[in-house]
Amino acid sequence: MQRAALELFSTRGYEQTTATEIAQAVGLTERTFFRHFSDKREVLFHGQERLTEAFLSGVEAAPADASPMEVVAAALQSAASFFPDERRSHSQARQSVIDQNPALKERERHKLAGLATALADALRARGVDELAATLAAQTGITVFEITFARWIREDEQRSLADISSEVLNELLTLTAAARLPTR
Amino acid sequence: MQRAALELFSTRGYEQTTATEIAQAVGLTERTFFRHFSDKREVLFHGQERLTEAFLSGVEAAPADASPMEVVAAALQSAASFFPDERRSHSQARQSVIDQNPALKERERHKLAGLATALADALRARGVDELAATLAAQTGITVFEITFARWIREDEQRSLADISSEVLNELLTLTAAARLPTR
Repeated sequence: MQRAALELFSTRGYEQTTATEIAQAVGLTERTFFRHFSDKREVLFHGQERLTEAFLSGVEAAPADASPMEVVAAALQSAASFFPDERRSHSQARQSVIDQNPALKERERHKLAGLATALADALRARGVDELAATLAAQTGITVFEITFARWIREDEQRSLADISSEVLNELLTLTAAARLPTR
Repeated sequence: MQRAALELFSTRGYEQTTATEIAQAVGLTERTFFRHFSDKREVLFHGQERLTEAFLSGVEAAPADASPMEVVAAALQSAASFFPDERRSHSQARQSVIDQNPALKERERHKLAGLATALADALRARGVDELAATLAAQTGITVFEITFARWIREDEQRSLADISSEVLNELLTLTAAARLPTR
């Protein structure tokens, strides 16, 4: 159903496609559609739960003495396995539909915020204090967003894992180069 | 009009208040309302342009040899002047309305994304490369979001500038403590 939805959204446009049409494209009814998805937007965000699980299993796999950002790095590497190169063209098509529709952009931002919350909760559960957990989690999601946007660029060949390492290392370089006035 | 809107949203609820009622509360017409705001949501986000200007004037004021995160730090300190302590109770009331309404939360996330884009553009205009500019800007907005959420806590007494320094220093501490595998 997700593949059929993406196909219809790409060819006809998101606004012009109804849930009934998506269901019919795979021989199902509108009722079946709404048993699986709360609304039309949701059909493009069905992988979200498994992506969150990928992040959280990375957190679990991190050594007990890992610092918060090291845990986040482990979560990012685990999430990268969710996006093998074979998936890139699907991700590109999906993003192109999302980028053309403000309602879908909003849903995407909402999902990313939920991911950051789940990651912060997992850090807190490891004993990281609230500020550090929130900050490390949000920063990790920023790295993920930038990584993902680069991975789906037309001319990009590198794996998501490689780009993720590059972006995270750039963050460490940037922060290491900052001399701030101490209070 | 913004104060009247906040008052009505707080007492009656956001959904239950119409643009006409907001306008009437200050002796104006619905037409005047829509001359100032594109929709009902927008009335709570009218300060956005000036906030963006505060960030950008911080960027401009940063020394020419400042590193990207130092420029972001300057932007954050400049933005802090936008939220003097006298404004805290207004900001608390406003946030409480936003947090109760998904449509307003979405608009807020949209505005923050726009702020990150403006900040990244300003960094690029200083010669910062694309990845560093995007990453430094987004990270700066994360620091701002966390700072702002702490500033409007019920029991918080510190200034936004002080909290901002604390959060930014915590980010530097977190990233300095990360040993990542080099590729």
